[in-house]
Amino acid sequence: MIERIAILGTGLLGTSVGLALRAAGFTGSIVGWNRGAPGAQRALAMGAIDSIAADPLQAALASQVTLLAVPIYSTLDFIEKLAPILGPEHLVTDVGSTKRTITEAGTRLYNTPERAAFLPGHPMAGKERGGAELGDADLFRGAVWLFTDDPEAKRSPQSAALVKGWRELVAAMGSKTLDLDPARHDELVAWVSHLPQFVATALSALLQEEVGDAPELKDVGGRALREMTRLGASPYSMWRDIAATNTEAVERALDALEQRLAHLRENLRTPALRDEFDVANRFRRE
Amino acid sequence: MIERIAILGTGLLGTSVGLALRAAGFTGSIVGWNRGAPGAQRALAMGAIDSIAADPLQAALASQVTLLAVPIYSTLDFIEKLAPILGPEHLVTDVGSTKRTITEAGTRLYNTPERAAFLPGHPMAGKERGGAELGDADLFRGAVWLFTDDPEAKRSPQSAALVKGWRELVAAMGSKTLDLDPARHDELVAWVSHLPQFVATALSALLQEEVGDAPELKDVGGRALREMTRLGASPYSMWRDIAATNTEAVERALDALEQRLAHLRENLRTPALRDEFDVANRFRRE
Repeated sequence: MIERIAILGTGLLGTSVGLALRAAGFTGSIVGWNRGAPGAQRALAMGAIDSIAADPLQAALASQVTLLAVPIYSTLDFIEKLAPILGPEHLVTDVGSTKRTITEAGTRLYNTPERAAFLPGHPMAGKERGGAELGDADLFRGAVWLFTDDPEAKRSPQSAALVKGWRELVAAMGSKTLDLDPARHDELVAWVSHLPQFVATALSALLQEEVGDAPELKDVGGRALREMTRLGASPYSMWRDIAATNTEAVERALDALEQRLAHLRENLRTPALRDEFDVANRFRRE
Repeated sequence: MIERIAILGTGLLGTSVGLALRAAGFTGSIVGWNRGAPGAQRALAMGAIDSIAADPLQAALASQVTLLAVPIYSTLDFIEKLAPILGPEHLVTDVGSTKRTITEAGTRLYNTPERAAFLPGHPMAGKERGGAELGDADLFRGAVWLFTDDPEAKRSPQSAALVKGWRELVAAMGSKTLDLDPARHDELVAWVSHLPQFVATALSALLQEEVGDAPELKDVGGRALREMTRLGASPYSMWRDIAATNTEAVERALDALEQRLAHLRENLRTPALRDEFDVANRFRRE
């Protein structure tokens, strides 16, 4: 059914989707576009895409499914620019890490019988560094691919079929799909994805300033330190738009953790420390 | 040279030392003792020890080297109890995670020509759960085994030779040894080991209370969440004595992280967020 896919943005996620589609047996065409030419050339050389598009809008127009795999504000730009040129024979979907803003734009500009479909998506998979060269056909295997679709969407039969087809391709890439309300999505990922990232960033930055120069540091840190700071390598460019589009939920989560750390600090020698370990143990057991 | 070793405490570390000694070709005797009988029987069944001692003090008396692999306050108890019964033909060493208190006790009660030697040690290796059943002959391979020995120690030639022999066995188990001043040790591990643990505990406890009941949680959390909360499974029993014997350094580290998180929270939409990511990136690059 789906035979022509455009991937706009061939970074880690876009390139991995191309590779995963091929690994899953997808035999249609995959055209790619990237803001920087080297990323597109790398994705082409890796076989993630068949050809490089000069113009992303033309590439979308010539495809049935367009996957937006760019930062969140660029995703919002493309949603605006593609809406007037695409029609009911098209589907646009994305991989953005926050979904309220993106889903609102999609609902406003897509998903009527005369317009293209927009399906907001978010694969819970990634790496602490980006770039086509890290693209991985197995990145989505065993992961959950979240959707925050509008249950009220009134789509043309063509684009409704494309939505169904894209969900099947996501399953073929090895992901389990799960549907969430967009506000619930942003709240949940603030806790389980954004908070862990910002904690790792703050911890890594603090350790850099406190012990970054210690000659014994490289030796002394073991697996625990490596794990707790791995996400510290994540670049600002991957997180700026997330921080800006999920600010309130992330603020609440950070504030709650600050209070929790203060409570633990004040109880290093009291029985309340045991309670804190017990609650933490439950999180890992369940 | 070393032919009789006693391991007091056959939990994860004690059992792993027994297994690693055997894997390194140590052919002498290894007697084990454990507060709970099942742990000693498990270590025996795994081949980490040759026999189980009924009395830990008698086992130490009959050995050349006694390894204390029990919690810190129990280590301090054994240091006190063994000092009057051992002599210059003995070495006592340990694996405790804080070293100032233990090293002070060792210096006070050991390390004269008439007394046994005490060598304070701390292998930077472990798991988030304890127990003989998790014992692993490769646990110390590639890790650093810290020593905070007293440079002024005046030992008998016999016990000095045992210190040298134990350091060689540690190297044979695959660890690199590193000597630190005990106060410097406790300061450094507060940052690179204790802070990461308490952060993981606080984060896990917070997530348990905020989203522990969310049905989507198991699906949504990926590798990043698993890594950032793995240490949340660590039991209170492993960390109580560490919190109590390195309180001030851990308090300083936690307080500094609280401030760092507040700074990040207040700058989710400002250019200061970029600076924080840049400093964190440097920690992972260097």
